[in-house]
Formats: sequence, C-alpha cells, structure tokens
Amino acid sequence: MKTQEIADFLSAELVGDGNIEISSVADLHKAAAGQIAFLEKGKEIGDSDAACIIVPIGFDPGAHDAALIFSANPKLAFALIAPKLFSKESPRFWHDTSHIPTNSEIRANFVGAFVVVGEGSLVGEGSELNDGVKIGKNVRVGTSTVIHSNCVLYDGVSIGNNCVIHAGTVIGAAGFGYVKDGNGEYHIFPQIGIVVIEDNVEIGANSCIDRGALGETRIGEGTKIDNLVQIAQNVRIGKRVVIAAQTGISGSTVIEDDCVIGGQVGMGDHALVKSGAIIGSQAGVLPGKTVRPGVWWGTPVQPLDEYKRQNAHVKGIERLKNQVKELTKRTEE
Amino acid sequence: MKTQEIADFLSAELVGDGNIEISSVADLHKAAAGQIAFLEKGKEIGDSDAACIIVPIGFDPGAHDAALIFSANPKLAFALIAPKLFSKESPRFWHDTSHIPTNSEIRANFVGAFVVVGEGSLVGEGSELNDGVKIGKNVRVGTSTVIHSNCVLYDGVSIGNNCVIHAGTVIGAAGFGYVKDGNGEYHIFPQIGIVVIEDNVEIGANSCIDRGALGETRIGEGTKIDNLVQIAQNVRIGKRVVIAAQTGISGSTVIEDDCVIGGQVGMGDHALVKSGAIIGSQAGVLPGKTVRPGVWWGTPVQPLDEYKRQNAHVKGIERLKNQVKELTKRTEE
Amino acid sequence: MKTQEIADFLSAELVGDGNIEISSVADLHKAAAGQIAFLEKGKEIGDSDAACIIVPIGFDPGAHDAALIFSANPKLAFALIAPKLFSKESPRFWHDTSHIPTNSEIRANFVGAFVVVGEGSLVGEGSELNDGVKIGKNVRVGTSTVIHSNCVLYDGVSIGNNCVIHAGTVIGAAGFGYVKDGNGEYHIFPQIGIVVIEDNVEIGANSCIDRGALGETRIGEGTKIDNLVQIAQNVRIGKRVVIAAQTGISGSTVIEDDCVIGGQVGMGDHALVKSGAIIGSQAGVLPGKTVRPGVWWGTPVQPLDEYKRQNAHVKGIERLKNQVKELTKRTEE
Repeated sequence: MKTQEIADFLSAELVGDGNIEISSVADLHKAAAGQIAFLEKGKEIGDSDAACIIVPIGFDPGAHDAALIFSANPKLAFALIAPKLFSKESPRFWHDTSHIPTNSEIRANFVGAFVVVGEGSLVGEGSELNDGVKIGKNVRVGTSTVIHSNCVLYDGVSIGNNCVIHAGTVIGAAGFGYVKDGNGEYHIFPQIGIVVIEDNVEIGANSCIDRGALGETRIGEGTKIDNLVQIAQNVRIGKRVVIAAQTGISGSTVIEDDCVIGGQVGMGDHALVKSGAIIGSQAGVLPGKTVRPGVWWGTPVQPLDEYKRQNAHVKGIERLKNQVKELTKRTEE
Repeated sequence: MKTQEIADFLSAELVGDGNIEISSVADLHKAAAGQIAFLEKGKEIGDSDAACIIVPIGFDPGAHDAALIFSANPKLAFALIAPKLFSKESPRFWHDTSHIPTNSEIRANFVGAFVVVGEGSLVGEGSELNDGVKIGKNVRVGTSTVIHSNCVLYDGVSIGNNCVIHAGTVIGAAGFGYVKDGNGEYHIFPQIGIVVIEDNVEIGANSCIDRGALGETRIGEGTKIDNLVQIAQNVRIGKRVVIAAQTGISGSTVIEDDCVIGGQVGMGDHALVKSGAIIGSQAGVLPGKTVRPGVWWGTPVQPLDEYKRQNAHVKGIERLKNQVKELTKRTEE
Repeated sequence: MKTQEIADFLSAELVGDGNIEISSVADLHKAAAGQIAFLEKGKEIGDSDAACIIVPIGFDPGAHDAALIFSANPKLAFALIAPKLFSKESPRFWHDTSHIPTNSEIRANFVGAFVVVGEGSLVGEGSELNDGVKIGKNVRVGTSTVIHSNCVLYDGVSIGNNCVIHAGTVIGAAGFGYVKDGNGEYHIFPQIGIVVIEDNVEIGANSCIDRGALGETRIGEGTKIDNLVQIAQNVRIGKRVVIAAQTGISGSTVIEDDCVIGGQVGMGDHALVKSGAIIGSQAGVLPGKTVRPGVWWGTPVQPLDEYKRQNAHVKGIERLKNQVKELTKRTEE
C-alpha cells in the first residue's frame, strides 16, 4: 500500500512522498524503511527511520524525511491501517486430520490439524478453525471468525461474524448452579441453555463463557473480553463493553452497552451495570446491586469520588486521634 | 416420562392429568407442550404453556391447565427430575483416532477423537473421555464420569465415580513450591505426590488442581468447584464443599466438609477452614489462619457482623471529624 | 545413588552407612526403605523409616538408625538431590501422529501424539513436546525444555533452555489493547510483537503470556510463574522473580529482578516494581506507580507497616467515637 493510498483510506492529509510502498507497521523508534509508525499526541517525535508517520493535526512538519499523515487521532488511524497491511488472507486449507461429519456445513477457509466438528454444525466463509479446536453439535460460527488453537465450543453455541476467540477458551460449559437437598448434597440445576456471541466480539485466551441454565448467555456486538475471564450462566453483556483480564461475572448479571470493566473485578449474581458505567480493577459488585453510570471503585463498589474522600478520612484517623487526646487533656485541666 | 411417573419419582402429589408425556425441562415462561417447569417459592406464576408445573405446597391450583406437582422445594424437585428426562446414555463409541495402549484398561462408553491414554491407566464403565482429552500413566477414572474436551490428567491422578470435569481443566500439574539457594536461585521442591478426587465431584472449565508435593491433594465426595479455580499442592477439601469461580487455595490448606466459598477468594497456605464456614467472594484468608464456622467477609476475613460494624464506623469518620472540630471550637471559647 | 554419593553431591557430612542405595525421595513420616527424607529446621524428627535423612547441622544423631546427612538448609538439599534420583531421561520417541513440517528443525527427545509444529520452528535437544501441544510458525524452544500437554505457542514465540511450561498454558496470544473510535467502537491496536522467555523459567498450568504489541513481552531467567497467571503485552519481568497463582500484570509493566509477587495480585499498566520488592497476595498496584523495595500490602499497595498501623487505627474508631461522646457530654456539663 502506498503512502497516498493510506492517507486516502484514512481520509487524511499527506505531506511528503505519496509513492512510498508501506509493507508493515512498527514502533516509532524501531521502524525501518517501508514501515509506518505513529506519534502519540503530546509526545516528542525523537529519531525515527519510519518511511511514514501518522502525526497529530497541527504537528510541525519541519525537517522530517518521512511522509507525514495528519490525523486527529494518530493511534486510532494506526490501528485502522494496520490490518490493511497484513490482511494476507490465509490460504484455503483443510488439514486432512480434521474430523468433519457429512451433515455439518463447513465453509471455513482454514481448518487446522486435529480439529473436531460435531454433527449439524455450520462454520461460515473466511473463518479459521485452528489446530485442536473442538466444536460440538449444532454449533454456528459466522463468517471471517477466527477460533484459535485448542478452544472448545460445546453443543449449540452460536458465534457471529468477524469474531476472534483466543487459544484455550471454553464456551458453553455448564453453569455453576446447584440446589441443596435436605442431606446437604448438591444437585446441579439443569444447565441446558445456549450461548450467543454476536458479531465483532473478541475474547482472550483461557476464558470461560458458560451456557445459560434454561435461557441464554449473550455477549453483545463489538464487546472485547480479555484472558482468563469468567462469564457465568445467563449473563447478558451489551454492545461495545470492555472487560479486562481475570474478571468474573456471576449468573444472570446484566452489563449494558458501553461499559468498561477493569481486571480482577468480581460481580455477584443478578447485578445490573447500567450503560456507560466504568468499574475499576479489583472492584466488587454485590449480588442484586445496580451500578449507575459513572466511575466506580472498591469492594463493595462506590463512586470513585466517595471512595477517595473516604480513603482520605481513613488516612486522617491518626490525626483525629491526636486531636481527641489533646482535647481530653485540655478538658481535664 | 408421564406426569404421574414424575410425581411418583418425586414422591409428590399430582393434581391434574397424570398421563401427559413430558420430554424436557424448560423455563416457566418459555415452556411449551411436553415440557415441565417449576414455580419458585414466593414468585407469581404468570402465564405459562408448560404441560406440567412443579409448585410449592400450598399453591392454589385455581384455574391452571397444567398438571401440577406439589413439592416442598420445587427448584430441587425440578433439578432432580431433569437428568431423568435427558439421560439418553451416550452410544458406546470409541473414535479410531484415540491412542489407547494395550496395557491400559478402558471400559468407557465414549472415547472421542484424538484422545490419548497413558500406560497402566483404567477408565470405568459408562464414563466419557471427550475429544482431545490427555490422560497420563497409571491414572484411575471411575464409572459414569465425564471428562470434557481437552482436559489434561497428569500421571497417577485418581478420579472417582459420577464426576464431571469440564473442558480445559488440568489435574495433577506440579505444585508451585520452591526453595531458594544462597544465590537467590529457586529450585523446585519435589512435586511427586498424587491427586485424589472422590465420587460425585464436579469441576468447571480451565481450573487447575495441582498434585501433592510428597503427599496428596484431595477433593472430597460431592464437592463442586467452578471455572478457573486454583487448588494448590497438598490441599485437602472435604465433602459437599462449594467453591465459586476464580478462587485460589494455597498449599496444604484444609477446607472441611460443608463449607461454601465464594468467587475470587484467596487463601494462604496451611490455613484451616472449619466445617460449615461460609466465606464471601473476594475474601482473603491469611496463611496459617483458622476460620471457624459462620459467615466471613473481607481481607483479612472477619466475621460478617464485625465487618459490617467496622464498615459503618469507617463511613462515620466524617461525622466524627466534624464533632471533634465543633468540640475544639467550644473548648477554645 | 548411594548415601555417600548423595553426601558428596551436596558437599555435606554423612554420619552412618554410606553404602545404602537410595531410589527416591519421600515425606519424613511416610518414607520407607530405600528412600531419603529431610528434617526441617526447628521441627521434631519423630518416627521415620527413611533410609537416609537430611538433618540440620547441629542435629543430635542420637540413636537414629538412618544414615544422616548434615546440611545448613535440609529442605534445599532435599530439593537439589531429588531430580538426581528421578532423572531417568525420557526415551527418544516421536509419536507418528505428530505434524512436523520439513522446514522445521525438531531435535526434541519426545514428541507426543497430536502435536503440531509450524513452519520454520526449532526445538532443541532433550526437550519434550507433550501430547496435543500446538506450536506456531518460527517458534524457538531451547534444549531440555518440557512443554506439557495442550499448551499453545503462537507464531514467533521464543522459549529458552531448561524451562517447564505446564498444561494448557497459552503463550503469544494478542494483547488486549484497543483504540476507541468516534462511534464508541473498539479497534484492536496491532498486536504483532513477540514473547521471549529466558532460561530456567517455569510456568504453571492454564496461564497466559500475551505477545508484545509492537515490541516484546519478556520473562527473565530463573523466574517462576504459577497457574492461571495473566501477563499482558509488553510486560518485562526480571530474573528470579516469583509470581503466585491468579496474579495479573497489565501491559508494559516492569517487574525487576528478585521480586516476590503473591497470588491474586493485580497490577495496572506501566507500573514499575523495583528489584527486591515483595507484594502480598490480593494487593493492587495502580497504573504508572513505582513500588520500591520492601514489603507491600493492600489495594492500593502501601508498605506493610503502614498498612498494619492504619488497620489498627480503623479498628480503634469505635473507641475514638466513645471518647468523643464522653468529651461532648463533659463539655456540655
């Protein structure tokens, strides 16, 4: 892709040579010939051998050799152009050790070694099932979705288009719902529902998304989930939600659109996180609680401002203690 | 199964048609013809097309079309009947890509694709080894136990009857025990013990149960463990213990019978959790501590009542500060 | 190995029969003939049938039948001798179901069933790729390194010599870095860097080490990482660092040499943990923070002494409240 084509793709202004062939992206200070980099707003450009640099609007082109592309958000522009540069579609290849029953419909571009697909399953065009992926019966995987190695999709799971599921993630295992009998023994509540993952969802490695008990577990369009995350039965996550690593969401909790959830957050069951809420890492949401829009922190979660004020109060206890001591002395005098 | 047979199985009273054929369980409000649902105690019945509903004793049968089964615990009754309705035993099938050495004894009903079994291992009747399961040498798996896809059982692991292990779980890896030498280098302490998992244990997906160092790691009968849980070397967990997702138990800790451990709980090593203790989510148990029966909360764990009282005190600091300010003013006057 | 050879290997004094053949290690109280055990400093010896016991220097040999080896650190001596006793090198064996392309260079001793290796990869002598391991393209694995079953190494990952990676661990998946556009949609920032794992590193089961975004993620020599740990993109971990289970390290954070990190610790991005810091379990390090040498605790982390003092203050609020009440009463009188 030539520098001018990149500028056109980004609808951005180019200053410099529009004819340089760009083959890959790189860090600003490690880039070499043929590479494009970006300068983050507010940072110094320093030395760079990049052939092309995406710079903030208003950047002084000065004496830079590189072709410059001006963007209101250079980091975003860089993220948008990167996949264009390496989108070398995987060659259509089905490994002959894969097990694909005749009554499934696999249109995937790539099926790796030791892949297993169950009966009645459908995988769309342009998708990839990497080595060792295990797909149950009646599973739906959309188009251009990449399932990385050793993922397990249980029966009946449905995954949309343009999704990425990283290695070792398990989707559709039984939820952790038990009923205790009179002898203290636990009996599993039926875990026979489904999982629906909408389009453009990305899920990290070794995460777990449990199936609904009787209903469904649903991950909304454009949501991004990190590694080692636990999503329990009947959870409903909206669109464009971000969930960082090692967070756990208990059964039937609802997270509405456009929330940001930090890492190692724990949410009890039947909680409701309203659209636009931001929950800091390691926070804890009690069962049944409603978390309104805003920034939340701590266990149990409280608004960040309150958390900070309270924290300051706690740090002031020693001073308060000394004041009381002094007062007592004076009163006694 | 006919409605009267279900009532008989549950030793419960039936009001209505005992002759309806029930084929599956469903949510009360989504159930259709041929399905059985339940009404939770204290909830309204609303509209339902279920053919049969398990209702609390004392429920007014009124004008409901469905056959009604009366139970002291409808949710439990529903959980108990569900497996009877879908217990279609898997057909006896061994995939020809499985690797089973001649000196192992595999009586399992189902062996999936790309399963590997080590020498000297034994798997009992009615069990399932799903696709991609890797079983080491001298492993014992009991009868009617289901090992889901891509689980790994290291050498010498022993699993009882009627267990369920969900996908991606690793049992018997080396514990995390190191000894530091004079140069600050760490040397692994021998991790050559075993893991014993008793009958009726269920373990979620992507969990880890480490082998004993020199002794054993043991999970007691009827215990239920969720996804992404970490159980370290030499841990001993009693019977009918429930452990929610992402909890971690350090080496040599003992959890006695009938405890309930929330999610994301952390326990230090050599702790002792006495029978009947309930530990809230995200709590932390310090190494070597004894947790008595009762409800515990926070890090380090304290009795829930104490935790609440202290929390209220902390919230009252601001008021206390203002009181001291006022007092100081008056004293100065 | 004879008792005298063991004493010689440990450069330690032997009292008793130097000619006893020792075949394995065992717990002091479970050891039998032919086994070596150790007595921890400060503990009582009790009954033991061990043929040989490593005891602290100064231990009174008294009337013990066992051969005694005197060591300044019996536990370390025991850890050092153990691998000598079971280092029966795995027989050179390549399973015929493994997929190894002709342009890769695999000198491993053992390649299990259903292993997949990508093009251009190199695995050194004495290494083991256990059943179901999936290795991408252009991966480097050193000598005498053991990769346990069902691990996944993405393209370009580099692992040193004498490493152990336990089952189900995923190395080199894309980091969790996104850029939000004006419509609130997230676009992945390019995650095309590498992972470098140096020599003598051990990683537990079901952990995740993400690749660098544009740069590298690096784990230093001799570092030990437990199960279910999350290491994000561009993290740099020094030498001889210990990280316990379920800890998560966010992007670009640096942990210098000789740190000890407890379990379930969370670290924000771009933090810096200075050499020699010890961070207690469940602690939280805020993004961008520097953690100096010393012992740290809580969220956000504070020096352990401060944490304890503050905790004591919080516990004293009730008393303070009562003092203020009393003072107010007296002032009003």
